[in-house]
Amino acid sequence: MNNKSNKVNAAITIIGNEILSGRTQDTNLTYISKWLNKLGVRVEEVRVIPDDEKIIIRNVNELRKKFNYVFTTGGIGPTHDDITTESVAKAFNLEYVYHKEAYSLLEKYYSPEKFNEGRKKMAKLPSKSKLIYNPSSGAPGFIVENVFCLPGVPSILRSMLGGLKNEIAGGKTILSKTVNLKTVESEIARSLTEVQKKNKDVEIGSYPFFRSGKIGVSIVLRSENQKKIDKCNLEILRFVSEKNISLID
Amino acid sequence: MNNKSNKVNAAITIIGNEILSGRTQDTNLTYISKWLNKLGVRVEEVRVIPDDEKIIIRNVNELRKKFNYVFTTGGIGPTHDDITTESVAKAFNLEYVYHKEAYSLLEKYYSPEKFNEGRKKMAKLPSKSKLIYNPSSGAPGFIVENVFCLPGVPSILRSMLGGLKNEIAGGKTILSKTVNLKTVESEIARSLTEVQKKNKDVEIGSYPFFRSGKIGVSIVLRSENQKKIDKCNLEILRFVSEKNISLID
Repeated sequence: MNNKSNKVNAAITIIGNEILSGRTQDTNLTYISKWLNKLGVRVEEVRVIPDDEKIIIRNVNELRKKFNYVFTTGGIGPTHDDITTESVAKAFNLEYVYHKEAYSLLEKYYSPEKFNEGRKKMAKLPSKSKLIYNPSSGAPGFIVENVFCLPGVPSILRSMLGGLKNEIAGGKTILSKTVNLKTVESEIARSLTEVQKKNKDVEIGSYPFFRSGKIGVSIVLRSENQKKIDKCNLEILRFVSEKNISLID
Repeated sequence: MNNKSNKVNAAITIIGNEILSGRTQDTNLTYISKWLNKLGVRVEEVRVIPDDEKIIIRNVNELRKKFNYVFTTGGIGPTHDDITTESVAKAFNLEYVYHKEAYSLLEKYYSPEKFNEGRKKMAKLPSKSKLIYNPSSGAPGFIVENVFCLPGVPSILRSMLGGLKNEIAGGKTILSKTVNLKTVESEIARSLTEVQKKNKDVEIGSYPFFRSGKIGVSIVLRSENQKKIDKCNLEILRFVSEKNISLID
């Protein structure tokens, strides 16, 4: 990809019937995205897909070609519905075999009588995988090329990201500034369009909110360049003042 | 599609840079999915994509061919970054024009001096759209063929779903039963695999949890057939009892 040096992007694939059915509220998207953002990587697509081998293979193969990094969450545990690892092996045409280091880690983690079939399954990985260490519960995640496979349980996933920083070659950090206004979107839509036209390098988002009885709009400015954000911010404050709109902290 | 009569499926497309960046935690997925589930529609894929015309068009066109229903959230407001409506018009090769009824609704909702350019924009829809009425804030959503376009603000979206039931021709309702066990997945993985093999029509999900100091596993059984769920449940309770595993309420 020719954008590796400057703009670095990622996709997240959330694998799990429990997310699709609405039973479980995903919180990994926001966590991974913010974490990547600090490293200068922008999440540009997220897919939630079922625990279905063909679908996992198709999605991983589509996304790993389109994005610099792909993160998957879920489906790397010991039960029958944990099929992410084997599916990723198939996506890369790699063997799904015991990984020496993973096996040894898990063997040390559990006492011999507890190192059963289910736990041994978690040592089977696509051949050539690099491990993602798990300080919470032993069983590692893994990396194959640009695909990073993590568990679905948020607390475990979060504990594993810390060790991954050096694996990510990010671009420039995306900076942002939020301005909260006591108004409704329709009152500022036209002025905001004008500001966006004059500041094409700044992504301007407008998000209405209705919380604890307060109505307002958050304007979010995003760019890699702080000066461009500041200029854009000033132009917004100018029309906000002209329209007598109050700022909200 | 040949599965319209029995199994009815849907995809959700969440449109918004604020979700991708992690700034905003999506909650519409779980709400829409549970609502559809009651109507006998199973959500089989979710995508989160940016406010980008080409990407919206490509995704809407891919998903509307693959699924019985597609729901989009976000991007139908008055500001420059609300481009879902025009993009959906382009996806269907339809004109993006004032919708007579939507215009009239909004004209009545706002006083004449407040019915400004931004608000008028919300009356522009793909030609041939059917309206989705909005009891919260006036501006309607819309339906084109099997694509349902809703706003991103959760409270408004929820208020609009109520009026949509008659637009959805669902299949059989997907029933579910959850059994919570005081154990870890590795202890039950093998027995659960056996039960799954003998009960292929029941989708068995296994989800570890770590909450308020408690460790456990939720087993979720899903099927359209209550008897099959009951049979499967009984087989699980049998091995649970043999292994001396406690149930958790």
